[in-house]
Amino acid sequence: MTEPLRLGIAGLGTVGAGVVKIVQRQKQLLSARAGRPIEISAVSARSRDKDRGVSLDRYGWEDDPVALAKRADVDVFVELVGGDDGPAKAAVEAAIATGKHVVTANKAMLAHHGQPLAEAAENAGVSLRYEAAVAGGIPVIKALTEGLAGNGISRVMGVMNGTCNYILTRMDDAGLTYEEAFAEADGLGYLEADPELDVGGIDAAHKLSILAAIAFGTRVDFDAVALEGIGAITIEDIRRAGDMGYKIKLLGVAQMTGRGLEQRMSPCLVPDTSPLGQLVGGTNMVVLEGDAVGQVVLRGAGAGEGPTASAVLADVMDIARGVRLPTFGQPAATLAAPKPASAQSPGAYYLRLLLTDKPGALAKVATVLGEAGISIDRMRQYDHPGDLAPVLIVTHKTARPNLDRALGDLPGTGVVTEAPVALRIEEV
Amino acid sequence: MTEPLRLGIAGLGTVGAGVVKIVQRQKQLLSARAGRPIEISAVSARSRDKDRGVSLDRYGWEDDPVALAKRADVDVFVELVGGDDGPAKAAVEAAIATGKHVVTANKAMLAHHGQPLAEAAENAGVSLRYEAAVAGGIPVIKALTEGLAGNGISRVMGVMNGTCNYILTRMDDAGLTYEEAFAEADGLGYLEADPELDVGGIDAAHKLSILAAIAFGTRVDFDAVALEGIGAITIEDIRRAGDMGYKIKLLGVAQMTGRGLEQRMSPCLVPDTSPLGQLVGGTNMVVLEGDAVGQVVLRGAGAGEGPTASAVLADVMDIARGVRLPTFGQPAATLAAPKPASAQSPGAYYLRLLLTDKPGALAKVATVLGEAGISIDRMRQYDHPGDLAPVLIVTHKTARPNLDRALGDLPGTGVVTEAPVALRIEEV
Repeated sequence: MTEPLRLGIAGLGTVGAGVVKIVQRQKQLLSARAGRPIEISAVSARSRDKDRGVSLDRYGWEDDPVALAKRADVDVFVELVGGDDGPAKAAVEAAIATGKHVVTANKAMLAHHGQPLAEAAENAGVSLRYEAAVAGGIPVIKALTEGLAGNGISRVMGVMNGTCNYILTRMDDAGLTYEEAFAEADGLGYLEADPELDVGGIDAAHKLSILAAIAFGTRVDFDAVALEGIGAITIEDIRRAGDMGYKIKLLGVAQMTGRGLEQRMSPCLVPDTSPLGQLVGGTNMVVLEGDAVGQVVLRGAGAGEGPTASAVLADVMDIARGVRLPTFGQPAATLAAPKPASAQSPGAYYLRLLLTDKPGALAKVATVLGEAGISIDRMRQYDHPGDLAPVLIVTHKTARPNLDRALGDLPGTGVVTEAPVALRIEEV
Repeated sequence: MTEPLRLGIAGLGTVGAGVVKIVQRQKQLLSARAGRPIEISAVSARSRDKDRGVSLDRYGWEDDPVALAKRADVDVFVELVGGDDGPAKAAVEAAIATGKHVVTANKAMLAHHGQPLAEAAENAGVSLRYEAAVAGGIPVIKALTEGLAGNGISRVMGVMNGTCNYILTRMDDAGLTYEEAFAEADGLGYLEADPELDVGGIDAAHKLSILAAIAFGTRVDFDAVALEGIGAITIEDIRRAGDMGYKIKLLGVAQMTGRGLEQRMSPCLVPDTSPLGQLVGGTNMVVLEGDAVGQVVLRGAGAGEGPTASAVLADVMDIARGVRLPTFGQPAATLAAPKPASAQSPGAYYLRLLLTDKPGALAKVATVLGEAGISIDRMRQYDHPGDLAPVLIVTHKTARPNLDRALGDLPGTGVVTEAPVALRIEEV
C-alpha cells in the first residue's frame, strides 16, 4: 500500500493545529512507519483567518464539517470539533455513511452515542478510533483493547482529569483553598468553558465509561456512573488525609462485581506511597488490572497540544497501516447490555464531621454508626477554636448502603452542624 | 473471519504453560474479542510426561520444535524455547519458511538475529511478534511501535530486569550485602541458569537494543550497548546515594544524539521521587519520550507466568484480528544501519573513592579531576574507622571521556586504595 492516506481535519483548536504540525513536521517519519504518505486534503474550522501557527494554504477548506466529512479526497475524517451532539456527531455520521474512517478525541460524544456510532462504523466497514479521547497522550485505549486482550479485566482505575488533579495538588502543596486553586487553574486556561465538566467529574466520567465498555464487553453506560465532583473537598480534608498517609484524588473506578457493573467517579483517598498517590499536577494515570497480567500502570500527559495530537496520530497511523478493529474491542452488536451494580462494593470510608462541642456528642455519632452496622477503625477529635469540634472517623470496610443510612441518620442526632464529608478509601 | 486461529506452542515451561491455561480458561472471551476461536493444535517440549498443571491431551505432540513449526494445522508458531540460537531459531526460521506467523518471548534471539528474521518474515508476508520479549506484561512494544507512532522518539529508558531490581531493593530496604541479596534472589528462583544474564545486565541490554531499533528506525545493534552489571554496587553506595536523594537502578538508556545512537545498560542514580526511583522489587518500568507526547511511563510485572503469557496472547490476538505490522515498526529492509555514538552524552557522575587518610590526599584527587576538566558539585569525606577515608564526589555534568581520563589517572596519585566506583546520575 503506497497510496497516501488523506485526512480531513475538522476543528483547528489546540489539538487540531497540533495534528497539522505533526503531519507537516514528521512527513518522512510517518511515511516510513506507515509504509505510505500521510497527507491532509482539507480542513474545517469556525474561522478561516485565525493565526494558528501553521500554514493551511495547501489544504482545501470547508466551513461545514459535514461537507468536509463527505469530500471524495478524504479517507479519514478527524473530528476535533467537540460537543457530544451537534456538528461533531452529524459530521461523524456523515463520514461513516460515506465510507470514511473516523478518528476523534470526543469523549462526550462516545460516552453518549458510542453504541450507535460503533454499530454504524462496523456496518459500513470503517474504523472509529478515539485514543485521544481518554487520558490524552497515554496509549490506554490500545493497551486495554489490544495489549491486554488476553486478560479478563477485573478493575480499571484512573486519574483522568488533569485539571482536577492540578487543583487538588495545589491545595496540597501550596495550601490554597479550593476556590483559590480553582481560580489559579482558570487563570492558566485549564478549565473547560463549563467548569462543571472538569470539577464535577463529568469529563473524567465520560472517559471511565468508555474504558468500562472495552474492559467488560458492555455497552457504554455513562448514565450509570456514580458521579461526585471535587467541589466539597477542603484543605482540611487534604491535611487530615495526609496525616493518615493518604492523598485525595478524583478517582474513576470501574469493576465487574457480583452485584453488576460498578462505575464510580469520585474523590477518594489512596495511599500516598502508591503510584496514584504520587501523581501530582496535570498528569494522568490509568491502572489496568487483568487476571493474567496483574496490575499495569500507565502515566503521561492527559491534555495539551502535543500529547493529544500524538494520540490522534496513533489512530491515523493504525488506519494507514491497515489495522481494523471493532470500536470497543469486540463487534458492537455483541456488546452486552450493562447491568449496573445494585450497590457499590464494600469499602472503608473517611468521614469528617463538625460536631457541637458538648458531652455525649461523640457517643451519639458512634451510636448512629453502630446501628447502621459500621464499625470504626480510627476516630480522632481535633483541637479547635470556638464551640465546634471537628471529628475524623475512618471506618472499617462497610457496605455502601450502611454508610448512606448513617449519613441519613446523622442530622437527627442534633449534634452534627454541617453536612458530613464522606470519602471512600480505595485499595489500590 | 470466523476460522479458528491455530497455535503450535514450542516450550512448555512457566510461560508456555501459562499460555495454554489462558487459551483454555478464556475460550469465550478470546473468541468474542478476536472474532474467531483461538485454538491449540499441537505443542512441543523436552519432556512429554512432566506435570505442568494443564491437560495437553487434546493437542498434538512433537518432540522437535522444527517439526511443530512446519505442521499444516499450525497458523501461528509460538516460540517459548529460549536461547539466542539453536532449536529456537531453527524452528522460527522453519515457521517463517512455511508461511506461519511467529510469536516469541525470545529477547536474546531478537537481539542477535532480529534483522535477518524480520526480513525473512516480511518477505514471507507473515508476522513476527515479540511483546513478551521486553518488560513482561507491560505492552511496551505496542505502545512504542503503535501508540507513539506519530512521535519522533528522543529517549527510551527502562528498568527491565526484575531480578536486578529485586536485588538492589533488598540491599536498600533490608540492608543486605550484594552477595546476600543475590543468594536470596537465587533461592527464590529469580536468576537465570547463567546469572550473568541478569546481574551482568545482558538480558536487560537485549531488551534495550530491541526498543532502540523500534524507536530510532535502526537495525538492532546489541553489540553496541555499553554494558555494566550491578555486581560492583555495595550497600555503601546505596546508602550514600540515598543520603543525597537518589536510588540506584540498573537503568537502560537509548537515545539518538549528534554523536550517534547511544545505548547504555548500567547502574545509575535516579531521583528517589521519580517514578523510576520509586520502583521497588521485581516490577519493571519503561519510560518513553516523544517530541509530541512528552514522557509516557509504563509500569508492570516484568516476568512470571501470567504477565508473560498475557503479552504472548496480545500478539496472538493481534494476529487473529488481522493486524499485520513490520517487525520493528517499519519494513526491516528500510531500517538504517546504526551509527553507534562516538561518546556517551555528558552527564553528572557519582564517584566513591577510598583514600589513604593523610594530608593532601583529597587535594590530589581534586587536581586529577580538575586536569580532566571535571568540576565538582559536592564532595564529602565520611567518618571511618581505621586509616582509610571514604570520599564521595558528585560531579557537574561532564563528558564521559573526561571521566574516563580521570579514572585512569587516579591510581597514579598513590592515595586511592581501591578501584573507584563511578555511577552516572541520569536526568529522568
